[in-house]
Amino acid sequence: MKALISLALASVLLSGCALQSGPVERPLRATGDLGLVIERATGSVQIVEHSNNSSLARIEGLGDLSHATAVFSRDQRYAYVFGRDGGLTQIDMLQDRIVNRVIQGGNSIGGAISQDGRLIAVGNYEPGGVRVFDAQTLDMLADIPATPMPDGSRNARVVGVVDAPGQQFLFSLFDTGEIWQADFSQPTAPQLTRFENIGRQPYDALLTPDGRYYIAGLFGEDGLAKLDLWNPQQGVTRVLDGYGRGQEALPVYKMPHLEGWAQAGQLMFLPAIGQHRVLVMNAENWEQQAAIKVAGQPVFVMARPDARQVWVNFAFPDNQLIQVIDTQSLQVIKTIEPGPGVLHMEFTPRGEQVWLSVRDRNELQVWDTETLELVKTLPAQTPSGIFFSSRAHRIGL
Amino acid sequence: MKALISLALASVLLSGCALQSGPVERPLRATGDLGLVIERATGSVQIVEHSNNSSLARIEGLGDLSHATAVFSRDQRYAYVFGRDGGLTQIDMLQDRIVNRVIQGGNSIGGAISQDGRLIAVGNYEPGGVRVFDAQTLDMLADIPATPMPDGSRNARVVGVVDAPGQQFLFSLFDTGEIWQADFSQPTAPQLTRFENIGRQPYDALLTPDGRYYIAGLFGEDGLAKLDLWNPQQGVTRVLDGYGRGQEALPVYKMPHLEGWAQAGQLMFLPAIGQHRVLVMNAENWEQQAAIKVAGQPVFVMARPDARQVWVNFAFPDNQLIQVIDTQSLQVIKTIEPGPGVLHMEFTPRGEQVWLSVRDRNELQVWDTETLELVKTLPAQTPSGIFFSSRAHRIGL
Repeated sequence: MKALISLALASVLLSGCALQSGPVERPLRATGDLGLVIERATGSVQIVEHSNNSSLARIEGLGDLSHATAVFSRDQRYAYVFGRDGGLTQIDMLQDRIVNRVIQGGNSIGGAISQDGRLIAVGNYEPGGVRVFDAQTLDMLADIPATPMPDGSRNARVVGVVDAPGQQFLFSLFDTGEIWQADFSQPTAPQLTRFENIGRQPYDALLTPDGRYYIAGLFGEDGLAKLDLWNPQQGVTRVLDGYGRGQEALPVYKMPHLEGWAQAGQLMFLPAIGQHRVLVMNAENWEQQAAIKVAGQPVFVMARPDARQVWVNFAFPDNQLIQVIDTQSLQVIKTIEPGPGVLHMEFTPRGEQVWLSVRDRNELQVWDTETLELVKTLPAQTPSGIFFSSRAHRIGL
Repeated sequence: MKALISLALASVLLSGCALQSGPVERPLRATGDLGLVIERATGSVQIVEHSNNSSLARIEGLGDLSHATAVFSRDQRYAYVFGRDGGLTQIDMLQDRIVNRVIQGGNSIGGAISQDGRLIAVGNYEPGGVRVFDAQTLDMLADIPATPMPDGSRNARVVGVVDAPGQQFLFSLFDTGEIWQADFSQPTAPQLTRFENIGRQPYDALLTPDGRYYIAGLFGEDGLAKLDLWNPQQGVTRVLDGYGRGQEALPVYKMPHLEGWAQAGQLMFLPAIGQHRVLVMNAENWEQQAAIKVAGQPVFVMARPDARQVWVNFAFPDNQLIQVIDTQSLQVIKTIEPGPGVLHMEFTPRGEQVWLSVRDRNELQVWDTETLELVKTLPAQTPSGIFFSSRAHRIGL
């Protein structure tokens, strides 16, 4: 009888306890210093934090994560991961779990989140086009097929998807040489504007940090295609015509990325394709001002948030190196060797440190950008992309 | 005996429960979309969120909040509020409570948080100088008295405290016309560099968004004092010499703020002192390029994050108005009348909306920046400053 009463009381207390404590028990976690690291070979991601440089959790089951990228909800709670296999996965970074996952296409190259945070756009190779999803439910709201190929076999492949002010998405069509501007102020009835004949084979694109210029790199010819979103009626114009002309062509080991285009005052820094050079363009007249010789074919050319430094990584066989350029002197001030397979880098929001993924060492490295010294290493399984939640607040990523 | 055993058991269960459930039970909250609103007359603040535009909590007991400002920890969990009475208050935005509060001086005009998030600097009128605190404990780490007045009665008053890359704080001395650069790489042994004779009565200052130029407005004479942090050996130079020259002087009803200086491409927009004009300066040669006539004496001149618009509020008797300037045409495109006492504004991180504090209506207003229409109002007690947590990721605030 004693035991019975005690057990009954214990039962009441325990259920009260469960009600009070809610579904998850963990320390309170803020989201401003979180990040997501892609572990490409294992289809997993790590949630990390950059205040104390630690790993918080690993989440598995994200499918094929080669070439994967991520964007963040405006409150920085959810990450959306775009997998190469067409998977779109929503991760809750407060509960360390997948909350939603859809296979939205057959071969995706990335996406973007709308200015208001309510829409996710994914660009696909297969089927060629863009699909737009509700950020809360991942319900599809719009399906925009790209231009069909002349032989009707398939639609053009989509690259360079970015968000832009005014609830817009911009993207490029690799096979048909187009830039499309899509206004999603009405999510289920987007307004499309097509710009044709922008140049051969746009392979990637970026939005300048102020959200004004959409610029696509061209693989099929020298030069870049530029659209001024403040004056779209002026159409797409060519800049850096002859980008790389007169240089001996080298085999291209890895396509450079334009995401990390660096701007320092009026100077923009970008990777030359297939050459061992970083190009410096004057953003006032869009002409090349200088070229900086570097250790290999640049892949990412990224500015420290205060733009005083540009960090560059390289394609094989030089992908064990990083070079740091001073944007005032235009000189390489340091060459470091983090290890084999430096695939990506991400600066802390105010730039005091930078994280590097060193794939073939299965390690993340944190470097101090002032002393240019290694601060910490963390284990990771074949890490590639590193994405900090502060991206939620930036235009055009 | 039965009762005794049951109580003992209950006691064990309850203490186990308390350990499990932690100190606070509330829905999980991310911190990327949070904000703090100063309620100046009541010494309180509201915690708000801008994903759904709602108020989450009110916290009281912050003392004199006239002219108060706030900065955020790098994880966006904590807000630090600088009160006019010298109070420095640390607020936990996940637990809606004050976790620490010190009266650090007698009359404070604001402060800043270091690049790495570990130091809080406060600028004081009384005693004139800067004090630096550990961001976690609010323990004082450094006390930097300003230059004594010639008669020895007190030290110069400090204004325009900002953080800068490389663990620096910059600030200006109103009474003695100086700019000081303090390197806190060693928190308890800061390295100070003094720039003297920079001009009469610097009253406020800003850091350009890239973290390169520290610019102080001068009240005692026309012009601005500029320090290039990339080349400090060149010293402080004067820009916009004759800023406002040739205009009829008007009585100054309220000092303009420089915090919100707007930059769009190569153009910078700033409030003229005592005149009904917004000045447009070319950031390449630092010369005035245009002046835009506006409805009153401008107080804040702030750029939408994509820099396509500049929003302006005004001193009494025109402080019921807001004007919106198009930064391409340099025209006022809209005058709106939110109501009496529009004291401050804050854009959402990617600029689709802006919040206004309308003091004499005891209300916050949320406006759509594309349609220029009112979206929502929220009650607030004599609201003044509005600060969104995305500031944690920006340099020089």
